[in-house]
Amino acid sequence: MRVKIHVTLKEGVLDPQGKAIQKSLGALGFKSVSDVRMGKYFEVELREGLSKAEAEKELVEMCEKLFANVTIEQYSFAIE
Amino acid sequence: MRVKIHVTLKEGVLDPQGKAIQKSLGALGFKSVSDVRMGKYFEVELREGLSKAEAEKELVEMCEKLFANVTIEQYSFAIE
Repeated sequence: MRVKIHVTLKEGVLDPQGKAIQKSLGALGFKSVSDVRMGKYFEVELREGLSKAEAEKELVEMCEKLFANVTIEQYSFAIE
Repeated sequence: MRVKIHVTLKEGVLDPQGKAIQKSLGALGFKSVSDVRMGKYFEVELREGLSKAEAEKELVEMCEKLFANVTIEQYSFAIE
């Protein structure tokens, strides 16, 4: 069972990495970019045999304990 | 115009970061995880007025020049 996890900074949290990328894009001549936010992306493979409900429960725990810093980040996942 | 960009390691390229995360998940008791691959995720805001074709052309250039190291990484983007 393959899962795609996205972790992004919460709305309103400053993203200096994104700003640096935006600046670099400007310097490279890409003038149409008005904002860049950087996030993290994970592809997780879960062993077969878990039910979807069990997988969801585990994934919430994984995200809260390891993938995301829930103080400043939000997460979402999609089970394929 | 909002764009979501994913950059992932190409198939076959070792992902030590992913392996470290997998090991940490195992140590935390998540025994059902059989693989983790880590990628990058960007949300880019493009100024209105670009056509979809122009945006696509710019995005390919941005990905090849800045977002991805095309020797070892692949990229994809979705315009919303």
